[in-house]
Amino acid sequence: MADTQPVQNPPAEQPTEEGGDAKGPSKSELKKRAKEAEKAKKAAEKAARQAELEAQKAAAEVDFATEYYGKLPLNKSQTRPRRPRVQIASLTPDMDGTQVFLRARVQTSRAQGSKMVFFNLRQRIDSIQALLTVSPEKVSKQMAKWAAGLAMESIVLVEGTVKKTPEPIKSATVGDVEIHISQIHLESGLETILPFSVEDATRPDTEIETTEDVQFKRVLLDTRLNNRIVDLRTTTNQAVFKLQHAIGGLFREYLEGKSFTEIHSPKLQGAATESGASVFKVSYFKGNAFLAQSPQLAKQMAIAADFERVYEIGPVFRAEDSNTHRHMTEFIGLDLEMAIDEHYHEVLELLDGLFLHMFRSLKQTFAKEIETVRRQFPADEFKWREGPEGTLKLSFAEAVDMLVEDGVPREDLDDINTENEKRLGRLVRAKYDTDYFIVDKFPMALRPFYTMPDPSDPTLSNSYDFFMRGEEILSGAQRVHDPALLAEQMRAKGVDPATMGPYLDAFKLGCPPHGGGGIGLERVLMLFLKLNNIRRASLFPRDPKRLEP
Amino acid sequence: MADTQPVQNPPAEQPTEEGGDAKGPSKSELKKRAKEAEKAKKAAEKAARQAELEAQKAAAEVDFATEYYGKLPLNKSQTRPRRPRVQIASLTPDMDGTQVFLRARVQTSRAQGSKMVFFNLRQRIDSIQALLTVSPEKVSKQMAKWAAGLAMESIVLVEGTVKKTPEPIKSATVGDVEIHISQIHLESGLETILPFSVEDATRPDTEIETTEDVQFKRVLLDTRLNNRIVDLRTTTNQAVFKLQHAIGGLFREYLEGKSFTEIHSPKLQGAATESGASVFKVSYFKGNAFLAQSPQLAKQMAIAADFERVYEIGPVFRAEDSNTHRHMTEFIGLDLEMAIDEHYHEVLELLDGLFLHMFRSLKQTFAKEIETVRRQFPADEFKWREGPEGTLKLSFAEAVDMLVEDGVPREDLDDINTENEKRLGRLVRAKYDTDYFIVDKFPMALRPFYTMPDPSDPTLSNSYDFFMRGEEILSGAQRVHDPALLAEQMRAKGVDPATMGPYLDAFKLGCPPHGGGGIGLERVLMLFLKLNNIRRASLFPRDPKRLEP
Repeated sequence: MADTQPVQNPPAEQPTEEGGDAKGPSKSELKKRAKEAEKAKKAAEKAARQAELEAQKAAAEVDFATEYYGKLPLNKSQTRPRRPRVQIASLTPDMDGTQVFLRARVQTSRAQGSKMVFFNLRQRIDSIQALLTVSPEKVSKQMAKWAAGLAMESIVLVEGTVKKTPEPIKSATVGDVEIHISQIHLESGLETILPFSVEDATRPDTEIETTEDVQFKRVLLDTRLNNRIVDLRTTTNQAVFKLQHAIGGLFREYLEGKSFTEIHSPKLQGAATESGASVFKVSYFKGNAFLAQSPQLAKQMAIAADFERVYEIGPVFRAEDSNTHRHMTEFIGLDLEMAIDEHYHEVLELLDGLFLHMFRSLKQTFAKEIETVRRQFPADEFKWREGPEGTLKLSFAEAVDMLVEDGVPREDLDDINTENEKRLGRLVRAKYDTDYFIVDKFPMALRPFYTMPDPSDPTLSNSYDFFMRGEEILSGAQRVHDPALLAEQMRAKGVDPATMGPYLDAFKLGCPPHGGGGIGLERVLMLFLKLNNIRRASLFPRDPKRLEP
Repeated sequence: MADTQPVQNPPAEQPTEEGGDAKGPSKSELKKRAKEAEKAKKAAEKAARQAELEAQKAAAEVDFATEYYGKLPLNKSQTRPRRPRVQIASLTPDMDGTQVFLRARVQTSRAQGSKMVFFNLRQRIDSIQALLTVSPEKVSKQMAKWAAGLAMESIVLVEGTVKKTPEPIKSATVGDVEIHISQIHLESGLETILPFSVEDATRPDTEIETTEDVQFKRVLLDTRLNNRIVDLRTTTNQAVFKLQHAIGGLFREYLEGKSFTEIHSPKLQGAATESGASVFKVSYFKGNAFLAQSPQLAKQMAIAADFERVYEIGPVFRAEDSNTHRHMTEFIGLDLEMAIDEHYHEVLELLDGLFLHMFRSLKQTFAKEIETVRRQFPADEFKWREGPEGTLKLSFAEAVDMLVEDGVPREDLDDINTENEKRLGRLVRAKYDTDYFIVDKFPMALRPFYTMPDPSDPTLSNSYDFFMRGEEILSGAQRVHDPALLAEQMRAKGVDPATMGPYLDAFKLGCPPHGGGGIGLERVLMLFLKLNNIRRASLFPRDPKRLEP
């Protein structure tokens, strides 16, 4: 019991660029590191001598508190005392004097002399101050010393008493109470050097920029992703992934209310469908398979199989060597497809209703999480139009006109590229005061073969994109349900209908008119919160250069 | 308008074995087909001559009903009249006399003379009889003739009047009313030969066996899967996949109520983790990636990252060349992982609560769907124990004893193989009257390296399997959260800790004790309904020999 652990200092941050190559450190960097290592070594030696001396001194004193602290044996489910535990967030001033028991991470600790240790204890997005004070027959000096030596990020079991604080503690999310510790045990310690502190990883970039006199460490994205486990522990990331969960849940909730059936379509495909270029090839026993780049074909086949309305939440794979802030090789598609009665605007309106449901619910139900993320990623509140005029819908032609009016040469606007999309987003925000809008009636030339052409102008199509903060988050359309027209459009787009047998067959067996769309979950999350990089919206992101952790 | 289509007869069933090779047809089969083709050709010629004659005759009569029937132009969203439509299931006798408008499939049609046509119209799991009768100024002879020629599985828009039936119509699910058709238009026809009729595909095998005098076609599994779009339209399959949706939904609902967070972990992995043998390799730009064979490592890493309780619903991939009734190369994993306070039985009990919630809700809320499946797949009702004694829990040792008592040599029971699992299921059913039970405390030798050993007997482990009808549907355990023990167990199981870097690191950074389990969605569905083959529980199943449709 009672083995000590030195407080581990995070190593200096490597100054690599965000999203840049993960090259080796520079020479000067290596030199700097060697110097730091030497310094750390000396400090450790000094600390060891000091510790030895103090240990000798401590051995002379009898420790009455050995049962109240120390490292616990590995939990192999030896016993089950069923002792109740509390959540930090549930502690309130009216519990003043109550004894509680809880598990938490040591986010920070600070010894004040040899008789007092302050802790910031953390549970997910909540934190509280806890205090250990040497006192006769309760807390021994040895106990305080051991506790002061607990490494950051250690998991401890704490018994203590809830106390009202005279004034709010700003460094904790629960600031009106603190815990006076009577027992503290280590359940899981650290057996490696912490790559950065969770406190540093939670600091907003703006704060670092405005406080040049303080030695704040900036933790860059690549370093975070290389050490994702620690990075995910920040209150920011705990909130980000609670919001990711919420968006998926709201998608589902809305569609369940509209009689959709959830389906699971296979990711392993016999042929490289849709467009062969960006498909991953898999060794499949003695042959090959391909990873689905969307559930497009499967969900349309489900419509031909009378499922009427389907949705799917699942991974989609894109073998595109794009190293941008908004591309990943694997992401989560929120896909839906539905039979339409008369007009594809039935789908467009349902999708609009879906997004409004998401935005409203996020704002109403997840204000705490949004506020938590805002502290690290300050952003204007996401805006959308409520009221009778409804969501802004522009035709592609109207969007082009707005850009031309703003000075973009019309000849550059056969397609609206990423840069012009963002420009359009700014123009729309300025003119219509919304971060969310729809562009309808894309040119047929820009859409895949399964897109239904416009009934009166065959150069246009019954297709649409949805935008958030000037970036596309949904692409959708009415689909072609007639096999002859479908084969014709395949040939026109350079796809051989012979390679699409089972898909084409589905429409030869009779299929209702239908439409749908695909939403990128991480994009919605990134843009709603303005996280600026899609990797921040993915638990363990994958891009052409990253397959771990 | 009003172009006629001949009724298409399904071709004769190919006598391939279930799950057998999809080899080419035999010589005798080819001969048989040629003969049939010749016969079909002659019949078509005769029909064409007949049609021509009748067309000449019809041309002589004026058709007053041309607006009331015929093929509709392709829906490209030309108009949006917003005409209300009804669902078959909503039609009741008190609507007698009401005019309705609906879309449905023609499941079957039968002309009675030249003046009357009976239809069985289908919407998903509901069907109704509809009737077209020649009458002056309303339904012309030409209209009746055209309607009688509609191919099975055509999608039609029907306007008609609801009429109470004098006695229940047994061939329809809505039998107390029928529709008297005033208008019928073809929205989507068939442009290929129907491989089998939906009616044949819905018939239970038992019925085929007991009615040898009638020419019922048995539709074998391979034929169904080759033509999955038509097969999925059976009322049985519509119900099966509504139940698949329900099981996923109930899993989620239960865990949401227990503060779990849904996560999405990457399927693309940098290394062949867990056990390299059954992992698919993917070409990843200039290198390789591997498909995750479970979210095991990711969900444990999420626990190390303080997510506390996580679940995931997503595809898992197994490169096992197993061609059995219960193996697929891709299936849906319902996975969860949670921090435990004291004992792994916290997880086991939560999982038990989850299954009881599923079973109870399925029985209560989805009785109609279960009954629909039972008509084709008769089975004993699924049984589980309610009441104070709770779910049956056996230790592995107790399970072995039961088998030994039943005559299985003890030396064969180091592991319980598939055959003995089923035997155990029968013994448990006979003794305890339950199809659902838990086996706890598996030998360490049978479990993966990340399994926590038993605290007092290191040859045993804190692990469990859950069973339904004598087949394993969940495997789970307390996991090792101590990096030293984890590395030791990796080495003992022949896994090089160096290949598991990011995973091991997660535990070096401090991790609470935790446990979890993985459920095969399709297995639960198959066993609850007793579908006898896992492929029936998957929308588009994948096995070593099947990558399409």
